[in-house]
Amino acid sequence: MKLLRVNMTDSQIRWEDVPPQYERLGGRALIAKVLLNEVPPTCDALGPHNKLIFSPGLLGGAMVATAGRLSVGGKSPLTGGTKEANAGGIAGDTLGKAGIKAIIVEGLGKPKQFQVLVIDGDKAELVPAEDVTGLGTYATADRLQEKYGTDASVSCIGQAGEYLMTGAGISTTGERDQRSNHAARGGLGAVMGSKGLKAVVIKKVTGKTVKFQDEQLFRTAAKEYAQKLINDPKLGTKGTQHLYGTASIVGAVNEMGSLPTRNFSVGQFPPSVELRGEKLRELILAREGKVGTRCMPGCVIACRNLFSDETGKPVVGSIQYETIALVGSNLGIENLDDVATLNYMCNDFGLDTIETGAALGGGRMMKLEEFGDIKGIIGLLKQVGEGTPLGRIIGCGAVTTGRVLGIRRVPACLGQAMPGYDPRSLKGNGVTYATSPQGADHTAGNAFGARKEVPPLGTEGQKALSLRLQIIAAMLDSTGLCLFARPPIISKPQLMIDMINGIYGWGWTLEDYDRSNREVLRTELEFNRRAGLTRNDYRIPEFMREEPLPPHDTVFDVPDSDLDSVFDTL
Amino acid sequence: MKLLRVNMTDSQIRWEDVPPQYERLGGRALIAKVLLNEVPPTCDALGPHNKLIFSPGLLGGAMVATAGRLSVGGKSPLTGGTKEANAGGIAGDTLGKAGIKAIIVEGLGKPKQFQVLVIDGDKAELVPAEDVTGLGTYATADRLQEKYGTDASVSCIGQAGEYLMTGAGISTTGERDQRSNHAARGGLGAVMGSKGLKAVVIKKVTGKTVKFQDEQLFRTAAKEYAQKLINDPKLGTKGTQHLYGTASIVGAVNEMGSLPTRNFSVGQFPPSVELRGEKLRELILAREGKVGTRCMPGCVIACRNLFSDETGKPVVGSIQYETIALVGSNLGIENLDDVATLNYMCNDFGLDTIETGAALGGGRMMKLEEFGDIKGIIGLLKQVGEGTPLGRIIGCGAVTTGRVLGIRRVPACLGQAMPGYDPRSLKGNGVTYATSPQGADHTAGNAFGARKEVPPLGTEGQKALSLRLQIIAAMLDSTGLCLFARPPIISKPQLMIDMINGIYGWGWTLEDYDRSNREVLRTELEFNRRAGLTRNDYRIPEFMREEPLPPHDTVFDVPDSDLDSVFDTL
Repeated sequence: MKLLRVNMTDSQIRWEDVPPQYERLGGRALIAKVLLNEVPPTCDALGPHNKLIFSPGLLGGAMVATAGRLSVGGKSPLTGGTKEANAGGIAGDTLGKAGIKAIIVEGLGKPKQFQVLVIDGDKAELVPAEDVTGLGTYATADRLQEKYGTDASVSCIGQAGEYLMTGAGISTTGERDQRSNHAARGGLGAVMGSKGLKAVVIKKVTGKTVKFQDEQLFRTAAKEYAQKLINDPKLGTKGTQHLYGTASIVGAVNEMGSLPTRNFSVGQFPPSVELRGEKLRELILAREGKVGTRCMPGCVIACRNLFSDETGKPVVGSIQYETIALVGSNLGIENLDDVATLNYMCNDFGLDTIETGAALGGGRMMKLEEFGDIKGIIGLLKQVGEGTPLGRIIGCGAVTTGRVLGIRRVPACLGQAMPGYDPRSLKGNGVTYATSPQGADHTAGNAFGARKEVPPLGTEGQKALSLRLQIIAAMLDSTGLCLFARPPIISKPQLMIDMINGIYGWGWTLEDYDRSNREVLRTELEFNRRAGLTRNDYRIPEFMREEPLPPHDTVFDVPDSDLDSVFDTL
Repeated sequence: MKLLRVNMTDSQIRWEDVPPQYERLGGRALIAKVLLNEVPPTCDALGPHNKLIFSPGLLGGAMVATAGRLSVGGKSPLTGGTKEANAGGIAGDTLGKAGIKAIIVEGLGKPKQFQVLVIDGDKAELVPAEDVTGLGTYATADRLQEKYGTDASVSCIGQAGEYLMTGAGISTTGERDQRSNHAARGGLGAVMGSKGLKAVVIKKVTGKTVKFQDEQLFRTAAKEYAQKLINDPKLGTKGTQHLYGTASIVGAVNEMGSLPTRNFSVGQFPPSVELRGEKLRELILAREGKVGTRCMPGCVIACRNLFSDETGKPVVGSIQYETIALVGSNLGIENLDDVATLNYMCNDFGLDTIETGAALGGGRMMKLEEFGDIKGIIGLLKQVGEGTPLGRIIGCGAVTTGRVLGIRRVPACLGQAMPGYDPRSLKGNGVTYATSPQGADHTAGNAFGARKEVPPLGTEGQKALSLRLQIIAAMLDSTGLCLFARPPIISKPQLMIDMINGIYGWGWTLEDYDRSNREVLRTELEFNRRAGLTRNDYRIPEFMREEPLPPHDTVFDVPDSDLDSVFDTL
């Protein structure tokens, strides 16, 4: 495999052999190590010393079901620490097939002179991006696919990334006309913008596949893993996750009183009955949109949807739970059509819907708009695309919006907005939000699925639960696996070990597997430590420790000593 | 002496005896200790757990020449650490005479319901501030003096503090119609705003004076100290500081290539010849403004000015060096009339001119206005008073402006903008900016005066120089002394010791004096450490280590190891 290094300061591009210290790493694990080895931890995240890294997981390209995610990383301008965000689409698989372990983008672009990196087999070049500069992610992907083929993958930023907004993510295309898989979090779109990189185009890879060291071992394990996915009652073709996607949990989160509502002031939103996965599916089917499609080739869960408006015109896909929570209930929005409109706008501008929903939720407190006032909210969001001062504030996310508008109640940890579970009534997630080296992030270790095992309102057991989940999340993010695909691996880790050994022939044992998963977190925590983050940065916001959340009227009361010691047994 | 505690949450006011641990502390030293003892270091600076402290220095009320400054402090919303800012005027002396060691404002106000704290002898009450809410600092002081007497002192916030802008300071009145002495730095105006406190009025104190333990000892020392001030060639009635005020150094700073020019991109500004102290005096005298007046009763230096426009109408006083540098040369402004206009506006809105000048300097990079375009700059500044989104961005200071507008070149340390000496050509100030627990602040230890002793372009000796100056600054800020008044005390510390012993009878020795000065810094550093700040926070911005500053084409190259070890011998 190769590394592709692209220096935006002098436009130099070079292919490198993968050095031994990166050889056994993929996705998030590789990103963590590159950042620790190569990026000065205290550097300006939007300056020349940060690096933007695209990397498939270890399984990328091998056509393992639901395992082709693309990881993107760098030092986060939001958290000031390490950052990895991943997305579906075809780029992860394509990079894996092409034998590209990572694209490492270095240096600094010239202000407002964007370029496109085009990779075609063994060739890579930077070309001027004039024709797509200033465009949203949809039009950018369209134009670049017109030019480079509809089977090329396009990973790009919208206006938000161009403006260096710290709420900007990176959008990446899927099969055919599929758009908007987002490596949304941590402001990586702004890092890409600072590099002057508008898009990465990877032309379809032909005549190349992953070479297996032990194909039989791999195939046997991959088959059993896929079969387990298919047989899982939640994941199979009759499962809630296939039928309703991530939105399947709206009802349950509302039920438990953890649904972010009106800027995290309540945990239940009665109109959320109109925002549930069941309603989503019903509306889409009635309007001849799409449900049960895939965001990655070969996925057997197929939870993706494409939402259409009343006239049957496609609006946005895939509407996901976190978006429903943050730009839906959190803004007092009572119907999926409005959620879809906001989701489309965020996707097109290249904005993280979580960060933006939390920013708009705070904005409400300043009477920028009323909760539920969709016209007002759309008006604000438009300004992000236009780059007005108010748009720039919102585009920079919840913490900046709070600071500029004088709002105390900012639901964020380590500078990054919280996703769709209020930590006061799902305390395991609070531990993850506070202690993850990634900032507030449900994908870093989501306790929702373990709510029957560890009571979400109690403080007992949350610390151990969060650590366990954070280790699993590190594994998922480093192999390219979707969160939804974790049950077979959790119940039988040997499947992952066999797949890895089948491809790479490393002779990994269960101990190697466990150690390498833990090592991801250790590497990230060390980068953050060197960046100057201390235990005082790994905290839940003050207001959530003091302001009880209805309906349970609980505060976040896991003691700081638990937060400080989460990783003691790492 | 007494402490006055005011809780804004429940409007409770109580007088307390001074507890032993605060007895021997004043001004900055007292603030540092109250913060460490009473304020959770990681608390939200604009939340209920922060405290806003007003305190005279140890000499306050004793009518020592040039020693009646008022210290204001709290956890800074800009730096996240300890903060003390001080100002002239009559409040410091008045508190000292009244035997009030500190006013400690606690709790949180109700949104947009401001109150005024009125102190009249032993009575203190909170009254609604409806009649002054929304007003600038000039009109606020006028109205409150109409109500409580023109001899009452008024310390208040303008619109910036009401809006919780982190660039907001606190304005305090002097004798007669004197306005706008500013405890400007660190966003303490926003802390005052968060408490719902629009102003503190202290009615003239009658029949009370400082009680001396050894009046003879005090008088002898105070007299010698005053005589030394008068005899100092720089400070006396023929001295440059009396004649030209702080603006006396414009020429010299420009000469040495350290004058912030066009957003810290150059160190010399040829048109600064029009901004010099000599020019300032010439213009004022020609227009029948005032020069050589006092900001504090009994000051023998009298460096204050009142600038008038061409028609002889007073505009603003006192125009000071840092303002000339930050809203003058740093914005490409070539004449004092324009500087005066911007100074007045900042004072009226209650904005730190340093923070605001640095924010506007960065704004220029986004083509908000051209350097030197006074109409454009005025237009932007107006928006701060109006609280528009762009105004809020600028009002929150340089770092927030940089983040929101995507500007990398932000001249700030620990979140606070740099004053009027580019650290690339006055490296001792760079060490102070980086390492002071107060963030970038010239009054924390200004190496400019020692430029002949330690060459400003070299790295040698800067660390030791900065430490020495930081210890002196801690002494000045804790006793109520003006920076200008330091030479007699530096040359003969026994004068300060005798004055203190004469008032308080503590039997202080030179060792006690030295230890207590150092203790201020230790206490502050400890608060910051507990707040989560690490050595990586005590740094000069990346761009100043890499981008050479004309005309000397030097970068800031004092090694990090020197910054890390500044306080090793504290």
